[in-house]
Amino acid sequence: MEDTLIIESPQNARVKFAVKLRKSKARNESRLTLVEGFRETRRAFDSGWIFKELYYCSSLYMELDEELLVSEIRAAGIPVFECSETAFRKMSYRDSPDGLMALSPLVGKTLNELQLPENPLLLIAEDLEKPGNLGTILRTADATGVDAVIACDHKTDLNNPNVIRASIGTLFFMPVAEARTEETLRWLKERGITIVAATPGAEKEYTSTNMKGGTAIVVGAEDEGLSDAWLSSASQQVKIPMLGKNDSLNVSTAAAILLYEAVRQRRK
Amino acid sequence: MEDTLIIESPQNARVKFAVKLRKSKARNESRLTLVEGFRETRRAFDSGWIFKELYYCSSLYMELDEELLVSEIRAAGIPVFECSETAFRKMSYRDSPDGLMALSPLVGKTLNELQLPENPLLLIAEDLEKPGNLGTILRTADATGVDAVIACDHKTDLNNPNVIRASIGTLFFMPVAEARTEETLRWLKERGITIVAATPGAEKEYTSTNMKGGTAIVVGAEDEGLSDAWLSSASQQVKIPMLGKNDSLNVSTAAAILLYEAVRQRRK
Repeated sequence: MEDTLIIESPQNARVKFAVKLRKSKARNESRLTLVEGFRETRRAFDSGWIFKELYYCSSLYMELDEELLVSEIRAAGIPVFECSETAFRKMSYRDSPDGLMALSPLVGKTLNELQLPENPLLLIAEDLEKPGNLGTILRTADATGVDAVIACDHKTDLNNPNVIRASIGTLFFMPVAEARTEETLRWLKERGITIVAATPGAEKEYTSTNMKGGTAIVVGAEDEGLSDAWLSSASQQVKIPMLGKNDSLNVSTAAAILLYEAVRQRRK
Repeated sequence: MEDTLIIESPQNARVKFAVKLRKSKARNESRLTLVEGFRETRRAFDSGWIFKELYYCSSLYMELDEELLVSEIRAAGIPVFECSETAFRKMSYRDSPDGLMALSPLVGKTLNELQLPENPLLLIAEDLEKPGNLGTILRTADATGVDAVIACDHKTDLNNPNVIRASIGTLFFMPVAEARTEETLRWLKERGITIVAATPGAEKEYTSTNMKGGTAIVVGAEDEGLSDAWLSSASQQVKIPMLGKNDSLNVSTAAAILLYEAVRQRRK
């Protein structure tokens, strides 16, 4: 192929840059991140996401129609680079890379860029640490028709490649924003959105809270829970019953239980 | 301390044995596994679990009352070994070890050892691959008062140290069993337990299934779904509504949604 550029060496500047993008500092400075994997790259591309560059290594393909995707991306005018297996493995953040990776602009809107319908359902995650949890929450938010996910005061930013991965690329079609707690509280108040804060200390169970109107469900880190700012601003504090010996659930589990209860109430 | 043995070198036989236990083959042959972490070790010990040995490295402690735990375990007559940081890090399967690790007998009962109340609620996980998902399911099963968790035809065995970790030690007080699908089906049938199989292809939504009687909720791997054996034996196939673009949820998320619906119905 005439228009394919080749990256042979793991010392190549693009390989080194890709490795740097594992750090949030490098992502924020360059405003770029990595989308790795066939499913993730396919989803981002199909959602109209414009990559800066695409890297592939056909010997790592898992026979999922990778060639068609690469040719579509090339046809869209995006520079495509073939990589040696050594170079690709160096760039990859997976144990078993599948031979596709895109250099991509960062995802994420500001609060004022979010467009909300009437009676929106929002999911707010405060200060989550594990990328896997944030990614799983994004998948569940999509499944429950959430109108936007807002990550507040994040330890883990949305553009962490492991968030992209755990979300299976949901990030590229789900409205997501990153914001500070204070501005988010103001923004919710201005829009009359009810804040439902999940906390084990609540008296009320989540099933006895009305989530049919505009509702923001707020979840926090498992260890430390929600900050006072969220707890004191919440219209409702709710708990999920804990019938066993553990005193907390995984945060993405808690988010799913609350979101599906909102769906159950709203579809009645 | 007179009765403390010291492991200095990462070449020590106990260190090498601990590293071997990462493989399920070594765990099954020795009938031993590793319990790493303060919370996990504390929980297993408090649940009456009798460790074979305990390893600690005080320079890695996170100030969570580790010394008290070590002294309690020593007082119970279990051999306690102090480790150099190098040796401990070599044994550890964590990025940030917290200086506590126990060599432990395997967990898991046979089906016939499980003791069930009337109208039991069971969670069956078929062929899960990721230890994190199985561990998270165990936490949720505890929180929903599940009477037993059965892992069928497992790619990931219950005694994988990462399952123990993701369950935060729930494994040590929750009745768990490993069994083949065929024997589990027979066992459920003999006890008149209703099988509720979660599958995206179902017509019925999970909220319109009665889970008040003896119920086994069955979930499978995200990619491949449940096997035909489970689907055809299920009294009810149920789906979780998917209102977005994704066609599946994380398996531990799906299990949580079904289990909390069972709790909601049973507590009414």
